[in-house]
Amino acid sequence: MSNVTQIGELAAWGGERGKQFLEKEIGSQFAGVSVNTTQPGGEAPFWHSHGRLEEIYIVIDGRGEFALGDEVLPLEAGTVVHVEPGVMHALRALPDSPTPMRWVCVRAAGMALGETAGDAELDRERPFPWHA
Amino acid sequence: MSNVTQIGELAAWGGERGKQFLEKEIGSQFAGVSVNTTQPGGEAPFWHSHGRLEEIYIVIDGRGEFALGDEVLPLEAGTVVHVEPGVMHALRALPDSPTPMRWVCVRAAGMALGETAGDAELDRERPFPWHA
Repeated sequence: MSNVTQIGELAAWGGERGKQFLEKEIGSQFAGVSVNTTQPGGEAPFWHSHGRLEEIYIVIDGRGEFALGDEVLPLEAGTVVHVEPGVMHALRALPDSPTPMRWVCVRAAGMALGETAGDAELDRERPFPWHA
Repeated sequence: MSNVTQIGELAAWGGERGKQFLEKEIGSQFAGVSVNTTQPGGEAPFWHSHGRLEEIYIVIDGRGEFALGDEVLPLEAGTVVHVEPGVMHALRALPDSPTPMRWVCVRAAGMALGETAGDAELDRERPFPWHA
């Protein structure tokens, strides 16, 4: 099976929720891809890490910050961040980002995606560094 | 290891060669990512397929065509194509594409990338459908 989908222009990425997972629609087995929009001042709902999945974030437009463990990295068009399994992370778009932040997230774990169910650990209590 | 790189604005994607592989720079183990620019009228140098890797192409800007086995698919901003292992494919940017075609290619095989060396099969003789 080789599948095709149409997610539209950058301005439409992620729809109302701001996040669209593509792997079921395109039928990928080993790599997951989501396309995302974070409005200026918007942020991840919580920190999270994965047990086995690595993640690669690719920022296409907008400006933000990436909390990677104890680091805070600036995000702008062209920033690519690799997150190893086990590393807690979160992101936000800066309140004064000139545009919504558009970004791609890729994930893979060296096994079929279907075997990675329950791979995420959430930390809903940990404060974000940009609120400190 | 969690690594960060900066590939710049879309207009800089892929540098002079038009293709930049990111996995070594960011240290990813299971998912490979390249960012690419194909100038209007430009095309892949040859058809290829992979033995075990699946690929996901995400078009960010520009217009083109994707040859997927015997199919020819239109490409525009937001087109996402999944290519299964074993399927010969190639792409081009249309000669009248209003902008260079900017695209991301993700690949993964359910194993470490390092185990997939020699995974590609090239067909340098097969003509492209857009030259028929």
